[in-house]
Amino acid sequence: MDMSFQEYFPVWNRLHASHQKLLLDTVTTRKIPSGTLIHNGSTDCSGLMLLQTGQMRGYILSEEGREITIYRLFDRDLCLFSASCIMRSIQFDITIETEKDTDCWLIPLDTFQTLLEESAPMANYMNEIMGMRLSDAMWLIEQVLWKSMDKRVAGFLLEEAAIEGTNRLQITHETIANHLGSHREVMTRMLKYLQNEGMVQLSRGTITITDAEKLEVLRNE
Amino acid sequence: MDMSFQEYFPVWNRLHASHQKLLLDTVTTRKIPSGTLIHNGSTDCSGLMLLQTGQMRGYILSEEGREITIYRLFDRDLCLFSASCIMRSIQFDITIETEKDTDCWLIPLDTFQTLLEESAPMANYMNEIMGMRLSDAMWLIEQVLWKSMDKRVAGFLLEEAAIEGTNRLQITHETIANHLGSHREVMTRMLKYLQNEGMVQLSRGTITITDAEKLEVLRNE
Repeated sequence: MDMSFQEYFPVWNRLHASHQKLLLDTVTTRKIPSGTLIHNGSTDCSGLMLLQTGQMRGYILSEEGREITIYRLFDRDLCLFSASCIMRSIQFDITIETEKDTDCWLIPLDTFQTLLEESAPMANYMNEIMGMRLSDAMWLIEQVLWKSMDKRVAGFLLEEAAIEGTNRLQITHETIANHLGSHREVMTRMLKYLQNEGMVQLSRGTITITDAEKLEVLRNE
Repeated sequence: MDMSFQEYFPVWNRLHASHQKLLLDTVTTRKIPSGTLIHNGSTDCSGLMLLQTGQMRGYILSEEGREITIYRLFDRDLCLFSASCIMRSIQFDITIETEKDTDCWLIPLDTFQTLLEESAPMANYMNEIMGMRLSDAMWLIEQVLWKSMDKRVAGFLLEEAAIEGTNRLQITHETIANHLGSHREVMTRMLKYLQNEGMVQLSRGTITITDAEKLEVLRNE
């Protein structure tokens, strides 16, 4: 197993030696290709995942199959809800999929449960992650209620550019709709509006940000 | 101080004797009248509140002053976000007010922090509450995105009737709007529609549920 696990695992230095040993004895590695469904509502519960490199998103689905992204995970993030079955107060179904090829460690459920029950630093770290996920959800409530869709699209494009490190985004209108809980047709209309305003340039399968500053102003309006 | 604190405090029996003593030594009682603002965004941080009897709601405000209720607290609930300043991952401003005259215990911030840091059962219980608040937020996201307002009003009226133990609700259209993130005018239109359908009867300051079954069908449609 990869020796850098200890550097990646949060609160490692605050764990008892016995808990450190339990982790090293039971953790395994996983290589997960981009686009893999790793958690689907409440139907599976594979364990706690720690991302070494890669990208995931957690989203919910409407009865009609519409999607909206609740949060995204990157290098060094812990994927808590792939172990949500041991948290009985989690009363919602979230779907998690990889957005990029992902290398991660998988901490088995019973190891995770032992750590939570016996280690205050571990339980507090979980609290911190729960607080982050709750902050994500609250941010989304404000966006959905009080931000118009053009501002949300502007914000999403800027976020993507920051994640990908480029202004040339390989992304379909459908994918953006699935992140924002909207429809492809609505996204196409919004993007054409942004193009008319000189903020982006659209071509097949690609959206290029041509005026990030103007996009930023729109987002914060 | 009220001796029943030990019966109300969650995980009391799983705490070390020293932590039990710390709680008993530092906890105080509060009587808070209905309609009192007890936490306002990130500007105050009074400590952890445990409700003996009463009712509170947590809500957020738009820049234009619109409100939407995120969660409500009842007897025996812990009000976590009145101590949110010690949880650094909480990145949102929530406002909390009493909806009824409330008797509660106030656990000072430093006692709460000591308990969290030293007690795994306490930290895990906080996790459980965070999970409940996250479930509330996720439920709200689904409602706002995918439920039409008539269904949300139907659900709210049934919930109010369950809380108050009566079908005769003393509530204004404005208050309902503030719970649901909407406008008074929209509520008035919805309620008139429900009255035309024979589900409620409107009179000054009162909404009477006349066909709970039909309202229930609408909510679940």
